[in-house]
Amino acid sequence: MASKIPLSPLARPLPDLGTIAGVRLGAAEAGIRYRGRTDLVMAEFDAGTSVAGVFTRSKCPGAPVDWCRAALSGGVARALVVNAGNANVFTGRAGVETTSATAAGAARLAQCAASEVFLASTGVIGEVLPAHKITDALPALHATLHEDGWADAARGIMTTDTFPKAAVRTTDIGGVPVRIQGIAKGSGMIAPDMATMLCFVATDAAVPSDVLQNMLAGATDRTFNRTTVDSDTSTSDMVLVFATGKAGNPAPAGTNMDAFAEALESLLKELALLVIRDGEGATKMIEIRVRGAVDDGSAGRVAMAIANSPLVKTAIAGEDANWGRVVMAVGKCGEPANRDTLSVAVGGTWIAREGTVVEAYDETPVVAHMKGQDILIEVDLGLGTGQNVAWSCDLTHGYIDINGSYRS
Amino acid sequence: MASKIPLSPLARPLPDLGTIAGVRLGAAEAGIRYRGRTDLVMAEFDAGTSVAGVFTRSKCPGAPVDWCRAALSGGVARALVVNAGNANVFTGRAGVETTSATAAGAARLAQCAASEVFLASTGVIGEVLPAHKITDALPALHATLHEDGWADAARGIMTTDTFPKAAVRTTDIGGVPVRIQGIAKGSGMIAPDMATMLCFVATDAAVPSDVLQNMLAGATDRTFNRTTVDSDTSTSDMVLVFATGKAGNPAPAGTNMDAFAEALESLLKELALLVIRDGEGATKMIEIRVRGAVDDGSAGRVAMAIANSPLVKTAIAGEDANWGRVVMAVGKCGEPANRDTLSVAVGGTWIAREGTVVEAYDETPVVAHMKGQDILIEVDLGLGTGQNVAWSCDLTHGYIDINGSYRS
Repeated sequence: MASKIPLSPLARPLPDLGTIAGVRLGAAEAGIRYRGRTDLVMAEFDAGTSVAGVFTRSKCPGAPVDWCRAALSGGVARALVVNAGNANVFTGRAGVETTSATAAGAARLAQCAASEVFLASTGVIGEVLPAHKITDALPALHATLHEDGWADAARGIMTTDTFPKAAVRTTDIGGVPVRIQGIAKGSGMIAPDMATMLCFVATDAAVPSDVLQNMLAGATDRTFNRTTVDSDTSTSDMVLVFATGKAGNPAPAGTNMDAFAEALESLLKELALLVIRDGEGATKMIEIRVRGAVDDGSAGRVAMAIANSPLVKTAIAGEDANWGRVVMAVGKCGEPANRDTLSVAVGGTWIAREGTVVEAYDETPVVAHMKGQDILIEVDLGLGTGQNVAWSCDLTHGYIDINGSYRS
Repeated sequence: MASKIPLSPLARPLPDLGTIAGVRLGAAEAGIRYRGRTDLVMAEFDAGTSVAGVFTRSKCPGAPVDWCRAALSGGVARALVVNAGNANVFTGRAGVETTSATAAGAARLAQCAASEVFLASTGVIGEVLPAHKITDALPALHATLHEDGWADAARGIMTTDTFPKAAVRTTDIGGVPVRIQGIAKGSGMIAPDMATMLCFVATDAAVPSDVLQNMLAGATDRTFNRTTVDSDTSTSDMVLVFATGKAGNPAPAGTNMDAFAEALESLLKELALLVIRDGEGATKMIEIRVRGAVDDGSAGRVAMAIANSPLVKTAIAGEDANWGRVVMAVGKCGEPANRDTLSVAVGGTWIAREGTVVEAYDETPVVAHMKGQDILIEVDLGLGTGQNVAWSCDLTHGYIDINGSYRS
């Protein structure tokens, strides 16, 4: 199915991917669901690699999410195994057994404890994932792992994605240059609530796992968790960051890590927006900026209500600056709002101010803006100083095509 | 635009509409937006008519909603004026002036106070509704009002509706036969939060406005407020019930009104489901029953999360019993749920029980069920005794067609 979906018009090419010292990775064809493409990815990390992770808040998480939550308590990672095509969600005891068998198989190859292996699965929910398909394929895959395997890994984790997604940052810690590199997948079932579908990042920096965890939690709240394709939160959402320490930067007690934290957040934002650019059926990217709310949290919920409104998203697909639907979305979400202090802008043009349309409103620049690929909606609630942002995409026939027949 | 939308395959013919003693109504062409069809409806009620109403909880309600909320405090109604094509929402002072002028015009014709006139508008948001188009058309319309005008009224309030909607009930109060008759419109922007788009009901029963208000509030909570087409709550939602008292039933102090309350709720449910049957682009009607929740409220929120999930709705459009997406929707909504006690049925066949797929699950009856027009999804959370229901429709190309170009 995935191969029949046309390339997103918002697609971006893979950046030049380098290596991260201490990380070797690759992909193989395990034949789990797809044919003629890779669907199994493994990464191996040198001893001393710390790890941080954030996961879906779904009350029905997949077995690999449970596994990773438990493994994360150790703060150490030596291997990562990811498969596409089957999410290993709602598979009961069989699902748990698959995670144990997969971790054991990878641990034997990486010569580490099973609890140092991280697992992720993405694809169909509710079908048993046969462990042997993974464990049979792992030894040959392990033999091929190399530092240049990043692009292969980015491709191997795709499901309905139409292009592979990766991002790179370089920064320094205490004057020592460090690199951060990450890959992500995701296209539908995207309304991250803690993390998005799947995102894996590695850095050669030395960062203790607790410091890394704090950085990651804050950064995902401001990046992945501000995006939505279809308001449907995945059962398998996961962002993992691995820090190998090979860069030889100073230990962080007292070290200024601000530049690193900024670079990490910037990389996560790039990956999050790549996921939106590959939103199922997307033809336009939408940024929604809300200000004047009673607080930032309220502004965020208003922004998300607009970002998730099918009527706003279909209007944008139709290149119609139907700002009345923005008003509707503000009104429905239950956050403090006052019709008579509300202002709405599209593409930088304020169409309505304080409860009514601007006198002599000229639609010309707005019409031109709506024909572009990047749509900006601004809302000023006129109540306070709270502000926030959300990123979304339009809702088109492509979304219906993909999701009316994905499983079959 | 409305005339180009194909008839919903779930359409129902208008029932045989009788009269309600004390109610005269009709429709006219005011040329507000549409051409070649009626778009203005007026009803006149005899003196002594009590009224109850419920309205959208949107924080950005239309001017007519504000007007009706104020008018409702009197408990008395003599006239109703409804226009289609322009919602008179987010129109500032001009919108308020339009409601005043419209009510004054209708009051002159009905020889009543302006505060006894109820107003509703539906259509595009954010464009000024010129009062003169309505007040110019009202005198000729008023001259044509008659007791048999119900079908004309049902047609005159349509926007993207593909068929007119009405329902009739007969019951008795204290042995005296009474009739209840109602009309509704609505197709998109349907996620009622207190009431749906527009629904007008009249009865010849004598029911004091406070008693009627209590009945209406409870009944809408169990009917209209359990439905969704697209999760987008309208700024103009309104249900009004008018009781003319012409049936001559006994005054209600001590009178058993249970049969009347049941008939009213049954009529409201029929109208609410007609709105879903005309959901924009709908080809299938979906009923979602949730049980085993910690309480009824929680069950209702789980049912609505399933009812609003684009992935569930597109799967049903594709006739795919993708129950994994039901699990996803249960997991995302934040209500108490436990993957390992969760069971899911489609069309009466339990596919998954207590966290995993049923052994030797045979998809045959489920596949047959999915080809039908009425889809039943059942979820047992396995936690408590809370239960609730939601009604929705599938998400198809038709929804995108209608909403990508409705305004233009």
